[in-house]
Amino acid sequence: MIGVGTGPGDPELLTVKAVKALERADVLAYFAKEGRRGNGRAIVDGLVKPGIVELPLYYPVTTEIDKDRDDYKSSITGFYDASARAVAEHLEAGRTVAVLSEGDPLFYGSYMHLHVRLAGRFSADVIPGITAMSGCWSLAGVPIVQGDDVLSVLPGTMAEAELGRRLADTEAAVIMKVGRNLPKIRRALEAAGRLEQALYVERGTMTNSAMTRLAEKGDDEAPYFSLVLVPGWKDKP
Amino acid sequence: MIGVGTGPGDPELLTVKAVKALERADVLAYFAKEGRRGNGRAIVDGLVKPGIVELPLYYPVTTEIDKDRDDYKSSITGFYDASARAVAEHLEAGRTVAVLSEGDPLFYGSYMHLHVRLAGRFSADVIPGITAMSGCWSLAGVPIVQGDDVLSVLPGTMAEAELGRRLADTEAAVIMKVGRNLPKIRRALEAAGRLEQALYVERGTMTNSAMTRLAEKGDDEAPYFSLVLVPGWKDKP
Repeated sequence: MIGVGTGPGDPELLTVKAVKALERADVLAYFAKEGRRGNGRAIVDGLVKPGIVELPLYYPVTTEIDKDRDDYKSSITGFYDASARAVAEHLEAGRTVAVLSEGDPLFYGSYMHLHVRLAGRFSADVIPGITAMSGCWSLAGVPIVQGDDVLSVLPGTMAEAELGRRLADTEAAVIMKVGRNLPKIRRALEAAGRLEQALYVERGTMTNSAMTRLAEKGDDEAPYFSLVLVPGWKDKP
Repeated sequence: MIGVGTGPGDPELLTVKAVKALERADVLAYFAKEGRRGNGRAIVDGLVKPGIVELPLYYPVTTEIDKDRDDYKSSITGFYDASARAVAEHLEAGRTVAVLSEGDPLFYGSYMHLHVRLAGRFSADVIPGITAMSGCWSLAGVPIVQGDDVLSVLPGTMAEAELGRRLADTEAAVIMKVGRNLPKIRRALEAAGRLEQALYVERGTMTNSAMTRLAEKGDDEAPYFSLVLVPGWKDKP
């Protein structure tokens, strides 16, 4: 099994190693919502060889359900177990399975659910990918950290006071899972005195990417996978 | 000007976009210590086209001098200014200059010193690279963060109490600049109750990489660019 990081969106941001892994894989596995192809699969569209066996793994539930509910947890755990069994069948038959993971597989990636279930029984190589946050700060041309800066990667789902406390206690920050949390994130940034520096980035390296100073953006619309960057490196240059 | 992330060491971990940038560049610039080639330059050795103009930028001082001293600061600032002028001469002559940066250019990378000096006057594209930390957790096969985990990237140069406080206040951590700070880092991890989970990784994706549980490693020897990983994702799977 090979966990293949597909990077943030631009197919040219796959590593050479990832491209080679796709060329030699017999089976291409990926997580997706029912009826969709999934971002990872869409990114590699031009790189998939004809005749490869595709193994889409469709989530039973959406991200809209409260993740702390017991029925969510047992449903999603059962789904990952079943997904691991489906991948294992191919591995037992001697096939090489490439598992796509948007961004970097072991950095908030869904691939790791298969990794922890299968890496003990089968060989499991992980090919790192460019993270969404790295795609975003590169596109923005914004140095994020230098020297002895601390970088904090924070989920936008966090409580407002907690988010504000952490933003005041770090040189640089990346806030993930923005979406509906944007008004709260804005207030936390303001409380921490960091709103002026904050950048809002949508769809990092996709062709339809958008970037703006957060202070100039409305609270109306923000996709789940948008990011907020708070650059560090105060005494530049 | 193109800031090219060369990734953590394995030439196959360059992105496809980075490889293409090296193919079309007229000039290859990179920071290095006097008399050395620099890690970024070594990584792309097999990818450099014949006849390319090489522009090594040699640091005037080593990392051994106290960075807070005024003579260090003025010396290094003057060096970056002169480096920017050397790159600008090529850009003014219409040449494409690729500036190598180990790992990811805007994530603790030296490229950003040129970027902030030149991006206003010339076009400056940044091609992200796989970071050393991502190379390390991928090699280790260790899921670093999942779900709503907080990740803290911390310099090992930080004071012990401060390091311990931050390690106790995060799900996952990456400690950079280990080297001589290893005994202090070990004590801070112990104080935070995180020593048992900590992994020590040397030379991430180099061929001579080494990885071990930090609790089992002696304090004797640790290169400056080794890393300590403290994985999050407690309620896996």
